[in-house]
Amino acid sequence: MTVGDGLARSGTVLTRTRTSARRLDRTRDEAIATAVIEVLGREGYAGLTMDAVALAAGVGKATIYRRWSSKADLLLSVLDVAGESPPVHADTGDLRDDLVAVLLSTLDLLAGPSGRATRSLLGALVDDPALARAFQAGPLARWDAAWTAVLDRAVDRGEITPAAAGSVVAELAPAVLCLRWLVTGRELDTSVVEEIVDRVVLPLLRGW
Amino acid sequence: MTVGDGLARSGTVLTRTRTSARRLDRTRDEAIATAVIEVLGREGYAGLTMDAVALAAGVGKATIYRRWSSKADLLLSVLDVAGESPPVHADTGDLRDDLVAVLLSTLDLLAGPSGRATRSLLGALVDDPALARAFQAGPLARWDAAWTAVLDRAVDRGEITPAAAGSVVAELAPAVLCLRWLVTGRELDTSVVEEIVDRVVLPLLRGW
Repeated sequence: MTVGDGLARSGTVLTRTRTSARRLDRTRDEAIATAVIEVLGREGYAGLTMDAVALAAGVGKATIYRRWSSKADLLLSVLDVAGESPPVHADTGDLRDDLVAVLLSTLDLLAGPSGRATRSLLGALVDDPALARAFQAGPLARWDAAWTAVLDRAVDRGEITPAAAGSVVAELAPAVLCLRWLVTGRELDTSVVEEIVDRVVLPLLRGW
Repeated sequence: MTVGDGLARSGTVLTRTRTSARRLDRTRDEAIATAVIEVLGREGYAGLTMDAVALAAGVGKATIYRRWSSKADLLLSVLDVAGESPPVHADTGDLRDDLVAVLLSTLDLLAGPSGRATRSLLGALVDDPALARAFQAGPLARWDAAWTAVLDRAVDRGEITPAAAGSVVAELAPAVLCLRWLVTGRELDTSVVEEIVDRVVLPLLRGW
């Protein structure tokens, strides 16, 4: 649902008021999300306090506490804001190009502020099952939907079988990104993505 | 170096005294490592305080502070203790069986207390480059050595080429473990490991 939905459906004053309130909420949420990313970049996760976020966002601390109960919760809301546009929903008509496009868009995401927030969040998930479920239902599900759409279209075009699209092969490229980004720190660039797609994923998907 | 090395090399009283002190240090380190894992399991990373660890280990808080400056530092030392035995250095004479053995031993590791400690640590690494370097030089390097040994022996036996052993294919199985363990939470068991080894890694390594 976008901010304009309420207005498009109804012209009553009540609805307009609600829509304005929603727009204000939305502006404030974005200011807070930007503040979280700023504080995280400057102070790290240990320095991410409700006080610091309130100060950077120019809102009262009570405003923050009313909406978010913990800093992990706050981080998750940042990912919700950051996750609304990317990853690219590439539809080039070709599986190879779609895979490369989504993976490169993911690299951009991981290298940016929401990648940093995700990394901090993954550390917090282990002690918080509710947060883990929220992460899986939010940012992770959005990413997965973009990825699955690419594979499903290839199935529709007859490029690969449904079994291939649902196999472990479909995890290999995101898995290498995960390992290098979170654990080993090895380089992640266009040539790595293209090598994985061309020499690993495509041959296996087509022969599955 | 093991605790007995000093005694084996020299019979002087001074060396014996040093060795005893070292043995005491080692016993205390293990008690502290066990305490860290216990507190982490009970309270989570947020509840992992120097106070709680000192209490659980039955040592003075000053003892902890003298050796470790932060809880991330403490976590890393737990991984050092925990990482001394596994992963299995499998040498079955067959690449397929070696790969499966090391991966299954890694699954055991990830499912246990040092897996939990590693996950918390990965969250802390992002804000601490020194800790990140220590993680790479310690636990990660030990794991990598076990894995590389398996591939190098296959090269020596002529099963695969050096190019294959050094390629991105060598990362695929640990990458899927990483993705499922840290991010998606999908099941990780013997059948997943065997499918990845038999249908993904071995065919690609042999054809690289």
